[in-house]
Amino acid sequence: MKIMVINGPNLNLLGRREKEIYGTETFDEYFARLEKAYPQVELHYFQSNVEGELINELQRVGFHFDGVLLNAGGFTHTSVALRDAVLSITTPVIEIHISNVLKREEFRHTSMIAGACVGSISGFGLKSYNLGVEYFVLRDREGE
Amino acid sequence: MKIMVINGPNLNLLGRREKEIYGTETFDEYFARLEKAYPQVELHYFQSNVEGELINELQRVGFHFDGVLLNAGGFTHTSVALRDAVLSITTPVIEIHISNVLKREEFRHTSMIAGACVGSISGFGLKSYNLGVEYFVLRDREGE
Amino acid sequence: MKIMVINGPNLNLLGRREKEIYGTETFDEYFARLEKAYPQVELHYFQSNVEGELINELQRVGFHFDGVLLNAGGFTHTSVALRDAVLSITTPVIEIHISNVLKREEFRHTSMIAGACVGSISGFGLKSYNLGVEYFVLRDREGE
Amino acid sequence: MKIMVINGPNLNLLGRREKEIYGTETFDEYFARLEKAYPQVELHYFQSNVEGELINELQRVGFHFDGVLLNAGGFTHTSVALRDAVLSITTPVIEIHISNVLKREEFRHTSMIAGACVGSISGFGLKSYNLGVEYFVLRDREGE
Amino acid sequence: MKIMVINGPNLNLLGRREKEIYGTETFDEYFARLEKAYPQVELHYFQSNVEGELINELQRVGFHFDGVLLNAGGFTHTSVALRDAVLSITTPVIEIHISNVLKREEFRHTSMIAGACVGSISGFGLKSYNLGVEYFVLRDREGE
Amino acid sequence: MKIMVINGPNLNLLGRREKEIYGTETFDEYFARLEKAYPQVELHYFQSNVEGELINELQRVGFHFDGVLLNAGGFTHTSVALRDAVLSITTPVIEIHISNVLKREEFRHTSMIAGACVGSISGFGLKSYNLGVEYFVLRDREGE
Amino acid sequence: MKIMVINGPNLNLLGRREKEIYGTETFDEYFARLEKAYPQVELHYFQSNVEGELINELQRVGFHFDGVLLNAGGFTHTSVALRDAVLSITTPVIEIHISNVLKREEFRHTSMIAGACVGSISGFGLKSYNLGVEYFVLRDREGE
Amino acid sequence: MKIMVINGPNLNLLGRREKEIYGTETFDEYFARLEKAYPQVELHYFQSNVEGELINELQRVGFHFDGVLLNAGGFTHTSVALRDAVLSITTPVIEIHISNVLKREEFRHTSMIAGACVGSISGFGLKSYNLGVEYFVLRDREGE
Amino acid sequence: MKIMVINGPNLNLLGRREKEIYGTETFDEYFARLEKAYPQVELHYFQSNVEGELINELQRVGFHFDGVLLNAGGFTHTSVALRDAVLSITTPVIEIHISNVLKREEFRHTSMIAGACVGSISGFGLKSYNLGVEYFVLRDREGE
Amino acid sequence: MKIMVINGPNLNLLGRREKEIYGTETFDEYFARLEKAYPQVELHYFQSNVEGELINELQRVGFHFDGVLLNAGGFTHTSVALRDAVLSITTPVIEIHISNVLKREEFRHTSMIAGACVGSISGFGLKSYNLGVEYFVLRDREGE
Amino acid sequence: MKIMVINGPNLNLLGRREKEIYGTETFDEYFARLEKAYPQVELHYFQSNVEGELINELQRVGFHFDGVLLNAGGFTHTSVALRDAVLSITTPVIEIHISNVLKREEFRHTSMIAGACVGSISGFGLKSYNLGVEYFVLRDREGE
Amino acid sequence: MKIMVINGPNLNLLGRREKEIYGTETFDEYFARLEKAYPQVELHYFQSNVEGELINELQRVGFHFDGVLLNAGGFTHTSVALRDAVLSITTPVIEIHISNVLKREEFRHTSMIAGACVGSISGFGLKSYNLGVEYFVLRDREGE
Repeated sequence: MKIMVINGPNLNLLGRREKEIYGTETFDEYFARLEKAYPQVELHYFQSNVEGELINELQRVGFHFDGVLLNAGGFTHTSVALRDAVLSITTPVIEIHISNVLKREEFRHTSMIAGACVGSISGFGLKSYNLGVEYFVLRDREGE
Repeated sequence: MKIMVINGPNLNLLGRREKEIYGTETFDEYFARLEKAYPQVELHYFQSNVEGELINELQRVGFHFDGVLLNAGGFTHTSVALRDAVLSITTPVIEIHISNVLKREEFRHTSMIAGACVGSISGFGLKSYNLGVEYFVLRDREGE
Repeated sequence: MKIMVINGPNLNLLGRREKEIYGTETFDEYFARLEKAYPQVELHYFQSNVEGELINELQRVGFHFDGVLLNAGGFTHTSVALRDAVLSITTPVIEIHISNVLKREEFRHTSMIAGACVGSISGFGLKSYNLGVEYFVLRDREGE
Repeated sequence: MKIMVINGPNLNLLGRREKEIYGTETFDEYFARLEKAYPQVELHYFQSNVEGELINELQRVGFHFDGVLLNAGGFTHTSVALRDAVLSITTPVIEIHISNVLKREEFRHTSMIAGACVGSISGFGLKSYNLGVEYFVLRDREGE
Repeated sequence: MKIMVINGPNLNLLGRREKEIYGTETFDEYFARLEKAYPQVELHYFQSNVEGELINELQRVGFHFDGVLLNAGGFTHTSVALRDAVLSITTPVIEIHISNVLKREEFRHTSMIAGACVGSISGFGLKSYNLGVEYFVLRDREGE
Repeated sequence: MKIMVINGPNLNLLGRREKEIYGTETFDEYFARLEKAYPQVELHYFQSNVEGELINELQRVGFHFDGVLLNAGGFTHTSVALRDAVLSITTPVIEIHISNVLKREEFRHTSMIAGACVGSISGFGLKSYNLGVEYFVLRDREGE
Repeated sequence: MKIMVINGPNLNLLGRREKEIYGTETFDEYFARLEKAYPQVELHYFQSNVEGELINELQRVGFHFDGVLLNAGGFTHTSVALRDAVLSITTPVIEIHISNVLKREEFRHTSMIAGACVGSISGFGLKSYNLGVEYFVLRDREGE
Repeated sequence: MKIMVINGPNLNLLGRREKEIYGTETFDEYFARLEKAYPQVELHYFQSNVEGELINELQRVGFHFDGVLLNAGGFTHTSVALRDAVLSITTPVIEIHISNVLKREEFRHTSMIAGACVGSISGFGLKSYNLGVEYFVLRDREGE
Repeated sequence: MKIMVINGPNLNLLGRREKEIYGTETFDEYFARLEKAYPQVELHYFQSNVEGELINELQRVGFHFDGVLLNAGGFTHTSVALRDAVLSITTPVIEIHISNVLKREEFRHTSMIAGACVGSISGFGLKSYNLGVEYFVLRDREGE
Repeated sequence: MKIMVINGPNLNLLGRREKEIYGTETFDEYFARLEKAYPQVELHYFQSNVEGELINELQRVGFHFDGVLLNAGGFTHTSVALRDAVLSITTPVIEIHISNVLKREEFRHTSMIAGACVGSISGFGLKSYNLGVEYFVLRDREGE
Repeated sequence: MKIMVINGPNLNLLGRREKEIYGTETFDEYFARLEKAYPQVELHYFQSNVEGELINELQRVGFHFDGVLLNAGGFTHTSVALRDAVLSITTPVIEIHISNVLKREEFRHTSMIAGACVGSISGFGLKSYNLGVEYFVLRDREGE
Repeated sequence: MKIMVINGPNLNLLGRREKEIYGTETFDEYFARLEKAYPQVELHYFQSNVEGELINELQRVGFHFDGVLLNAGGFTHTSVALRDAVLSITTPVIEIHISNVLKREEFRHTSMIAGACVGSISGFGLKSYNLGVEYFVLRDREGE
C-alpha cells in the first residue's frame, strides 16, 4: 500500500517555530516514527509553500497511489484550485490538520477542501497523520 | 482505560434506515466489533434523542473517564448547551461524524461542538469511531 | 388509515393562553371534533415540550402509520435533529402551523423541517390540521 | 360561494413540460376534476405570465369573491407589487404551491406573498388547490 | 411646461382601499386639485399595474416632457428595468412616495429607482406630488 | 408660523468647499433668499458640528415651533440619539438632503432619522429646503 | 410572595467546575444565603439540562407564582420554544446571567429570551439573582 | 436552422440613448448585418419591455426553434419567472449581454437566468449576439 | 461610598415626553427618592446630550468613585468612544436601561458598551437604577 | 494576429478526468482543431497550476499580443493578483469557462477576473474558446 | 511648515491608563520629543473627546496648514461626519493609530476615515506620529 | 541593520504600467534612491508573482534580518498562507501599500496580513517604503 503525505505552506517550519505549541520535533523526525509504526505501508512525503506545486503533486500521485493525506495549511480555507485537484484525481484524499482549526480565528472555520475529501481529521497534533494512515489500513483490512 | 461513546438523535436507527447509504449493520453489531478490536479498552455506550440527556451523560462520566467520543448528530450545528457541557467537564472529548458533513447541506458546515473538543473526525463511516479510540490508545502509549 | 398528530412545545396550553387569539377551545376538544369529521380515519395524538420525545414518537410511528401531522412549534425554526428524524422514517409527514408564521417575527420565517416533509400548511388556525388529514384522505382515494 | 384560482407564470405549461415530475394532466383537466369535487362552489380560473395582469385580476375579483387561491409561481419570491395587491383587497387569499418550495433552490425559500395571505399550502401537487378550496368550504360551514 | 405623473401598481385603488389611512379622495379628484394649484403647468397622468407599461410610458414622454413624477409603488424596491428606463431617457424624473417608506417593512427601505432620479420625496401623503411639481416650477423660474 | 432649519456637520462650509458641486452661494445668502420667498413664515436657523448640540436645539424648539427642517449631514446614517430626539418632541420634523444620497456611497443609503420624521426630501440642491417649507405652508393652508 | 428560580443546562455544576472563575460555592449553598437575605419571600428552585423540562416547569408555576428568575444557560441564544413558553404564561419572568455574556463569544451576544421577559440582569455573578429578587420586592412595595 | 433573438426592457432604445457608449447603430440596423453574416440561419427578432411577454415569446418558440439568444436586460438579475420559463422549454437558450455586467453596479453581478441557460456571453458589444449565433452554427456543424 | 449616575441623550426629557410610557415623574424627582432609599450612599448625577461630555465625566470620576451607573441612551448601540472610556477608567461601570431594549427595534439589540462594563440591567423602568445601586451595596457588604 | 490561450489549474487533465462530463478529447487535440479552424490566426498555448506563473505569462505576452483567452479555473473566484495582472497589461483579455459556472456551487458564482476583462464566455464546452477567437477575428475585420 | 496633530477621545489619558501597554509617557512629554526631532516644523496639538470639536478644529486649520495627523480614536470606525470634514478641507490629512487596529476587535477593522485621507499609519506606538511628520518632510523636500 | 523589501504580484511592472498614476520611475530606480537615503542600512530586495516564493523568502530571511517591508499586492486580501508565514518567523514585518487601499474597491478593504504584522503603512506612494525603513531606524536608535 502506497500513501502520500502532502504538506502545504509553513509546515516545513515544524519543530523550529512556536516550539511551546508544536514541540521541538521536526516533521522529518516524526515521519521516521510514522514509518516505523506502519512498516507494511510505503509512505512518501512532499512539502511545498507553492499552491500550484501541491496541485502538481496531487496530479502526479493521484491516479496510482492508494491514499493521500493532505494538510493544505493556509490554502485550506480559500483554495478552489486545490479542491478541484482533489476532485480530479481517483486516489482518495483525507484532510489533515495538526491543530483544532475550529478553536482558532473565524476565517479558519471554513474548508474549501474537506467537501472534496473522503473525510477530515483535525486537532490531534501530529497524531492526526497516524489516524489518517490507520484509516487506509483499516479499509484495506476489510477489503473495501 | 475507560472510553464512553455517546450518540445523539436518530443514530439509534443505524442499520435500519437508509441502508443503501449506511449499510445494514446496526450500531450494536458495530460496537461489538469495536470492542473486539480494542480488547485493552473498556468501552461504554449511550444513546439518546434528548439533548439534555446527552448533557447529563457527559456530566456523569466527564470527571473520571479517560475519553469520550461524541457524535451529537443534528445537535452538532446548534447546541450551545452541549458545547458548554463539553467545556465543563475534564475528560477529553472527540467530535465524531459518520458522514463527511462538509459534503452535505450548508447548515451542517458549522459545528458548535468542535471548538470545545480535542479534535474532530468525520467522514470515515463507522470507522470514524475506530480512529477516535485509536487516538486515546496512541496518547496513552506515549504517556501524555 | 392511521394518522398521528404530533404537537410540539407550548401547544398544550391552547385554549388556556392568549384566548383572544387562539380562542377558548382546547386541543382535546378540537381533536374530538376532528375525529368526528373523519370517522374513517384512526387518529392518534401526542404532545411534548421535549424535542427528543417528539423524535422518539416520530421514530415509534414512522414505519407503520400512514401519515403524520407535525406541528413542531418553536423547534420548527432551529431543529436539525427533528429534520433528520423526519428524513429517517418512511411515513410521510406534513408540517402544520396554526398561525401564519410569515406574518410573525423574522426568526419564524425559516423552517428546518418543511424541506424534509411532503408539504406544509400554515395559517388556517386549527383547520390547518383538517387540511392535513384531508390530504391523506384524498391521496388514499386516488390510490397513490 | 365564488372562488377564483389565479395562476402565475409558466403554470400554463402544466402537463406539457417536465411530465416526469408534474405528470401529463393539464391544468384544465385538473380544474374540471376540481369543479366536480366541489359542485357547491362556483370556481373561476385565470392565468397570466404578466405580473401586472395578475394584479389587475386580483383587484377585479378582490372586493366581491369569497376567496382566491393564488399560485404566483416565480413572482412569489420577489414581487412587492403582488403583496400590496393582496393587502389592498378584501377577499381572503391563500398562497398555493404545487411543489414543496423549501426542497428547492435557496432563492425559493422566501415568499413576499405569504405574509399578506390568510395562509399557505405547498407541496401537495395539484391537490394543494383541493386543500385551498376545502378551507373555504370548512370556514363557510362554521359560519365564520 | 409639461409634466407627467406616472403611478405604478395598486395606486389605482387610492380612495377605495384602506380609507382610514389614505383618505377617501381618489387620485383623479386629487389630480384635478393639483391642476388647479398649478394652472401654468400642463399636467398628464398615467397609471398601470404592469411594470413594462410604466417603462413604455417613460420612454414615450422621456425625450420631450419637462419632468416626470414617478411613484413606482412596489416596483420601487426591486426593478432594475425601471431604473434603467429612468437612466435611458433625458427628461428629469423625481421619485415620489405617499407614505414614509422608511417607517414601513425592512424590504421597503431600499430603492432601486432613487439613485437614477434627480431626487426623492416621500411621506407627505398626496402632497408629495405637489412638492414634486413645485420643484420643476422653482427650477424653471431660476432658468436652470 | 415658526419653522426651524437645523443643519448638521460641515454644512457651515457651503459655498466655500467643493464650489464646482455646491456652487458659490453660502447658506446665509440662500437663507436670506428663502426668507424672501416665504415672507409669511418666521424662519430660524441653527448649525452645529456637535451631535449633542443638534439634540439640544431639537429639544429647545420641539414643543412650540410649527415645523423643523433637519439636515443632519453625516449623522443621518448612524445617529440613534438624533432619531430618539426627533421621536421625543412634538413638532413635526422633515429630513432634508441637498444631494441625492442614494447616488453616493453605500453607507449613505441608510437613514436612522427618516423613519422618525414626517417625510424626507433629498437631491434638489438647496431647493430641498424650499420644498420642506412649502409642505408646512400647504399643510397650514388646508388646516391640518 | 412566591418566586421561582429556574436554572438551565450545566448550571448544576456550579462550584464544581472552573472554580477559579465561578468560585467554590455551589448553587445550593448560595440559594440558602439568598433565602436568608429575603426571609419575606418564598423562594423555590428548579434545575434541568433538558430544554423541555424547563418549559414544563415554566408552565407549571407560570400562572400562580409572583415571579420567575430564568437563567436558561446555553438555551438562551437559540431557543424559540423557551421564548414561546415565557410569552405563554402570566407570571413575569426575568432573564438572569451570572457572567457578562457580551464579554464572551459572538454567538452569546443574542438572546431569544430577553425580548419575552420583563427585563434582563447579567454579569453580577451570583448576585444577579439577588438583584432579580430585589426587583420583585421593590415592585411589591410600590404596589404595582 | 431557426434562431430567435429576444431582447428585454430598454433595448429598444439602442442607437438612440447614450450614443457615446452604445454607438449610433439601432438594433434593427445591426440585426440586418447579422442576417447577412449568417445567410444560412433563419433569424427572428422580438423585443418587449414587459417581462410576461418575454415569457410568452419563450414559450411560443421554445419547443420548435433551434436556439434562443436572450438578453433579458434588467430582468436578468431578479426574474425567477424568466428563469422558470427557460427551464420549461426544450430549445437551448444563451444568455447575452452587450456590456460586461461585472464591470457595473454590484446588483448586476448576479444572474437569475444564466444558471438555466446553456451558457453566457457578455461584454462584446453587439458582437455578443454574433458569438451566440456562431455557437449554434458550430454545434450544428459538429452534429450535436 | 460614592456612586455616579450618568445619563445620555434625551433622558433629560423623562416625565415630559411620552408620559403614557415613562410616567410623569421627572428624573430629578426619581433621583430624590433613590437618595432616600440609600442614605448610606453618596449619589451624584450628570446628564448630557453630548457624547464627548459623557466621556469627560467618566474620565473625571473614573479613578476615585466607587461605581458608575451609565445609561448611554442612543449612544449605547454605536459608540466605540464611550466603550473605550469605560475601559480606560478604573471605577466599575454598570450599563443601565429603563426599557427592555431587546423588545424594541433591531438596531437596539446590540450594545457597544455592555462588554466593557461589569454587567447590564435593563427593562425595569427607573427601578433599573435601584438595582444598580443595590449591586454596589451588596458588593461593599461582602467586602469585595 | 497573435492570440494566447492561457489555462489555469487542473485544465491539463482534460480528456483524462471525468470523461463522462468533459469527453475524451485532450486539450492538445482540441487545440490542433482550433488552429485548423482559424488558419489566419497565430495561436499560442500555455498552462500552469501555479497562479504566479499565469501572471508571469500574462505579463510576458500582455504588451504585444493581440488577444488573450484566459481560463483561470479555480483561481477565477478568488485571485485579486490575477485581476491586477489583467488590468496591468494592454492586450485585451477574454474570460473563458468550459462549464456554465452559474450552474455549479455557490462559490463559483463570483468572478474576480471578469470585471477586468473585455468580456466573458462560459458554458459552451471547448467551443467557448472558439467563440473567444471568433471575437478577435470579428473585431479585426471591422478594423476596431 | 505647519502641521497639526489632532487626537480624539480618550487619548488624553495616555501615560495614565493601561501603563503596561502604552507606557508611562504622557502625550505632552512625547510631543516635546517630537518637536525636538523636527525643529524645522511648526507643530501644533489639539485633543478633544467631542466629535464635533474635532470637526471644528479640522475646519479651522484645514485651509492654511500644510498637514494634519488625525488619530480619531473610537470615532475612526463609525464617524461619517469626520470623514466628510476631512473631505471638505484642502490640507492633506493622515490617519494615525498607536496600536495595530487589525489585531484588535472586529469592529475596529473598518475605518470610515482612511478613505478620505492621503494615507494611513498604524501599529508603531507613538512612533506612528513620527512617521506621519516624516512623510510631510519628505514630500516638502521633493517639492511636491 | 539588514532590512528586506519583499514585493508581491505585478509590482515588477511599476514605471511601465499606468504611468499616469504610478509615475515613470521603476522600482529599481526608486530602490537606488532609498539606499542612498539610508546609507547606514543594508537594504535587500525580492519580488515574485508566486505566492509560495514570497513565503519561501520570508522564511529564508525571517530568523536573522532586522526587519521586512512586505507589499503583498493582491495577495494581501486573501492569503492565509502569507499571514501564517509572517506569524511563523521572528523578524518583525511591516505591511506596505503604495496606494491607499481604502479608497479602492471593497474587496481591497480587508487585509489578511496586517493583523500579523507590527504595523501598516499605506497610501504614500513609494514613500511608504521610506516610512517603513524610518521606523526600523527610529526603533534602533531608541535601543528597543
